[in-house]
Amino acid sequence: MTISSLLRPAAALLLALPLLMASPAQAQRRKKIPAPAAAANALAAELPDSVALRKLYDEALLRGQSYDNLNYLCNSIGPRLSGSPQAQRAVEWGRLTLEKMGLDRVYLQEVMVPHWVRGQKERGEIISERGKRLEAAVCALGGSVGTKGKLRAGVVEVRSLDELRQLPDAAVRGKFVFFNRPFNDALIEPGQAYGAAGDQRRAGPAEAGRRGAVGALVRSLTSARDNFPHTGSTVYQAGAPPVPAAALSTEAADELSQLLKADAKLSFELEMSCQTLPDEKSYNVVGEIRGAKFPAEIITVGGHLDSWDLAQGAHDDGTGVVQSLEVLRLLKASGLRPARTVRAVLFMNEENGARGAAKYAKLAQQAQETHVAALESDGGGFTPRGFTIEGASPEVQAKVRAWAPLLRPYHVDGLSVGHAGTDIEPLLKAVTPKALFGFDGDSQRYFDLHHTAADTFDKVHRRELELGGGGMAALVYLLSKYGL
Amino acid sequence: MTISSLLRPAAALLLALPLLMASPAQAQRRKKIPAPAAAANALAAELPDSVALRKLYDEALLRGQSYDNLNYLCNSIGPRLSGSPQAQRAVEWGRLTLEKMGLDRVYLQEVMVPHWVRGQKERGEIISERGKRLEAAVCALGGSVGTKGKLRAGVVEVRSLDELRQLPDAAVRGKFVFFNRPFNDALIEPGQAYGAAGDQRRAGPAEAGRRGAVGALVRSLTSARDNFPHTGSTVYQAGAPPVPAAALSTEAADELSQLLKADAKLSFELEMSCQTLPDEKSYNVVGEIRGAKFPAEIITVGGHLDSWDLAQGAHDDGTGVVQSLEVLRLLKASGLRPARTVRAVLFMNEENGARGAAKYAKLAQQAQETHVAALESDGGGFTPRGFTIEGASPEVQAKVRAWAPLLRPYHVDGLSVGHAGTDIEPLLKAVTPKALFGFDGDSQRYFDLHHTAADTFDKVHRRELELGGGGMAALVYLLSKYGL
Repeated sequence: MTISSLLRPAAALLLALPLLMASPAQAQRRKKIPAPAAAANALAAELPDSVALRKLYDEALLRGQSYDNLNYLCNSIGPRLSGSPQAQRAVEWGRLTLEKMGLDRVYLQEVMVPHWVRGQKERGEIISERGKRLEAAVCALGGSVGTKGKLRAGVVEVRSLDELRQLPDAAVRGKFVFFNRPFNDALIEPGQAYGAAGDQRRAGPAEAGRRGAVGALVRSLTSARDNFPHTGSTVYQAGAPPVPAAALSTEAADELSQLLKADAKLSFELEMSCQTLPDEKSYNVVGEIRGAKFPAEIITVGGHLDSWDLAQGAHDDGTGVVQSLEVLRLLKASGLRPARTVRAVLFMNEENGARGAAKYAKLAQQAQETHVAALESDGGGFTPRGFTIEGASPEVQAKVRAWAPLLRPYHVDGLSVGHAGTDIEPLLKAVTPKALFGFDGDSQRYFDLHHTAADTFDKVHRRELELGGGGMAALVYLLSKYGL
Repeated sequence: MTISSLLRPAAALLLALPLLMASPAQAQRRKKIPAPAAAANALAAELPDSVALRKLYDEALLRGQSYDNLNYLCNSIGPRLSGSPQAQRAVEWGRLTLEKMGLDRVYLQEVMVPHWVRGQKERGEIISERGKRLEAAVCALGGSVGTKGKLRAGVVEVRSLDELRQLPDAAVRGKFVFFNRPFNDALIEPGQAYGAAGDQRRAGPAEAGRRGAVGALVRSLTSARDNFPHTGSTVYQAGAPPVPAAALSTEAADELSQLLKADAKLSFELEMSCQTLPDEKSYNVVGEIRGAKFPAEIITVGGHLDSWDLAQGAHDDGTGVVQSLEVLRLLKASGLRPARTVRAVLFMNEENGARGAAKYAKLAQQAQETHVAALESDGGGFTPRGFTIEGASPEVQAKVRAWAPLLRPYHVDGLSVGHAGTDIEPLLKAVTPKALFGFDGDSQRYFDLHHTAADTFDKVHRRELELGGGGMAALVYLLSKYGL
């Protein structure tokens, strides 16, 4: 692309949009522009919505703190699986960060969480009938039992739980069941492919155990073809013996599948020292700005503080955490005191239990709180394109769609009916909000990283992240001003 | 994000979309699914549009070749500035690739192109008044004259050409003019920030020369703060002495600016051995599928084969090249013979002269060809969101907007009036097509890489790239079927 093209008349329409900045921006990351003095709240209430949204975005893009916060969460705290010391450090960091913002209220909600640990040993090998060994990239699935030493057995490959159910017992007993259905790459949304392949990881090992297998190997849930195994929760069935369950990288899965075709008698050796320890005490972290007009009406915005243990949980869900913090900061720094109460919640234990989510909903119900809406960011911190909406009546959907012209200049006007988020979903039954929203960003790269050692800070782009915080703040501002 | 959430009822609507694939995809990159036998052309003409588009996307996502083609172009050919041996290799590769596709016609269009070479020496140093030296990351701007040895002079910093014009001669004469206006980060579209800052690179050095400066230093055109200098064309004025012009990385620019505040008498030493050699013969590469019903009506789809010399020109514009090739391949492999002629053009010399663009338009005019529309991809190969449209009447715009429901399932229904592309723009006057289109994708990461050594193959994401080719093919298919 050349510049000259952009200076021609045809470009004028593209250039006409948000040029409210009088002087050229000096927004280098390390030399932040000093913020203008926050306008008086009374004045802010009178601002046209388009101006209010532009203020939020200026703050996000010129002085945004999501990226720096994420850097700390990823590089100074790191992986933070529920029950781990790092999860506890993340709770403390979250509380301190909220306290420094001068909010109306910051508090913790105690919750007991599962405490699963991966342990030191984690290794897989394909062993040919003749004894030749080939290492395979594996990781234990979250919640798996360990192998108690080395576990060696033959392998039976299936593409689905149905296919497993149709196998005779003799074909399964004493073996590893190898679930190897890949992502359907024809789907446009990787999240759909994840949903369609995910039963293998979630329910496959339990079914394998029920059928007498000694373990389960599951193809990693991704379109990428590389050597990163993807962890994630597996759930055992009551009454069926829990068997060790591991993810194979897609390269290892392809290799195992190919070798099986030539050598059906090969075996797999798995060693994993993972185990489940007693539950630990942990917390949701909550901060709120009290509504100026309707303080009893609550809008929740959140992400989850826990992550898997293999990497930094940058996109899953560090980005959702820092964006939720940023929504409060943007409102304050822009002098836009919300009419309704806005509450940021950093949920604990989304990845392997969602106990923080259950606790938040339960406490809200017990306190008979009035919840207008909730917004969750848990799909990665990539370029935003809008929101999903769940549990909303046609009238409420229409009300939200009417805001599209305000959101369009920022490319966050997309609104599709769909799942909003695991952490806010329990609110639907508990306190019947008018709508749940999910932050919806570009997700083509998300499942390359998801639950792997590659989900690190360097995969997050500063502007993409800050644009997401801006878009979330814009929606929350409109929700807080108009209700639903 | 957990899977269980995606399996709940609320997700059903999200999952309902394109599930035409009967069996789970086996689309590992290296094990391509065999394509179904191409439907008879007669049959294809009867296909509902939604089915035709789904066929194009299935082909792109399950058996796409854009990524492999780009790998070759980037890693086996590499940088390909006009006039270079690699540009010539790219021409040969483009021709061979088109010939292997079994098109109706493949040919070259000869064009003489500028031949600028960077040379071996390229170095910049900031020298304090006391003689302390600090290396600064620089690169010559494309088209710059060399320094003929080391060029040392004081530095005067400005933020704009206007600011330079207002300086007294004495403040400029014998110095380097340092253009240091950053990107306006408040703008949502990085392309707008590029357009707004770009006069410094394009016209700044000429203005500096006219005012008696000995050289020009230009802050790199990016929001990123790193140590990559960004090259790109600068244009000298007739009658003003051409002075050496270099880009500084944003880190070097910030450093120089800060040091100047403390030490206004510091100097800068620049050594560059770049030069302009005599023009070279080169080519546009053209391949076409003749229209089944209206062969005389032409739809052009293109990208540019040349790149800057610092890196592989992956996103600028290898992605546009391979996507344009892919449009033809997708149509053929899906058995969708277009009603109108579809022509892929790999333009030469977009970066520093656009002579290939001028030649293509001139030949079209001379041959009195009928051009319905043209589509260019030259903004990076990231996740698509739609198209820009240029030079179209309100009626034509309305016709295109009516296709939005067909394009929406693939997130390519965005249509905004704006610049379509440098290589197709000359067609507007030459052969008055009804509309020009620009492929419009996410661009937040584009100017981190643009014209730098970082614009390499590994920055391109397979699915993002193939989705772009699918979207371009979808638009071209509709244009070819319905005209404008």
